[in-house]
Amino acid sequence: MATHLTDNCLFCKIIRGEIPSHKVAETEKSFCFLDINPLSEGHALVIPKYHAEFFHQLPEDHLADILPLAKKVAVASGLKEYNLLQNNGPMAHQVVPHVHFHIIPKNKPEDGLKIGWPQLQPSQDSLKATLARIKEKL
Amino acid sequence: MATHLTDNCLFCKIIRGEIPSHKVAETEKSFCFLDINPLSEGHALVIPKYHAEFFHQLPEDHLADILPLAKKVAVASGLKEYNLLQNNGPMAHQVVPHVHFHIIPKNKPEDGLKIGWPQLQPSQDSLKATLARIKEKL
Repeated sequence: MATHLTDNCLFCKIIRGEIPSHKVAETEKSFCFLDINPLSEGHALVIPKYHAEFFHQLPEDHLADILPLAKKVAVASGLKEYNLLQNNGPMAHQVVPHVHFHIIPKNKPEDGLKIGWPQLQPSQDSLKATLARIKEKL
Repeated sequence: MATHLTDNCLFCKIIRGEIPSHKVAETEKSFCFLDINPLSEGHALVIPKYHAEFFHQLPEDHLADILPLAKKVAVASGLKEYNLLQNNGPMAHQVVPHVHFHIIPKNKPEDGLKIGWPQLQPSQDSLKATLARIKEKL
């Protein structure tokens, strides 16, 4: 199996079955289970069978496997409105240091993820400068 | 190209170049550009070259292509802390009806996405009932 797990990570232990979970589904490269402190009924996590703290550390084959599994779970869950969310770093609300994608149902306005959207209005020159900075490293 | 675009969608028009964008990168199946009303500097969108309103309507090959491109952009952007977010439905904060993944840098605590996390504490029986409901459809 193309796994890459560590000994002391909560989610690696869940993948190996050393810690019990409410397993929804798995593939060779990914694992899905229910969040035990959900934001709404049906809140699930999809995680790679590869220990990495941050999204940008995952290899391509693991990245490519995550969303197809998330779709299967979303369809089986009968979701209509929902958020997919993956957090990197403590400021961005990451708690467990193993990449995880949240599937968070929004069954009614008051449940699920709360989102605040403080939009900026940068100038065209500012956007062009940002674009140039990123493209230089691509 | 394995594209599937429509005539009247804002993001389909951006993909076709009929509406200008600050294009960061693209693959055969996905397209990335800067959000012109970013939540923080470097806020980018990764979208499939396939018109679908919701995540669960995308075909597998398009799903598999999105995260590898998002990783390339995250790495080129030099991101350390950030959120990946994809919203489905108006209650879940979706505005444009073409699937899009937000890459939202969190350069400092006060910028970027605001998240509220109202956790529930369901019983084991409740979690088991949810699991059974989902697994029945898998």
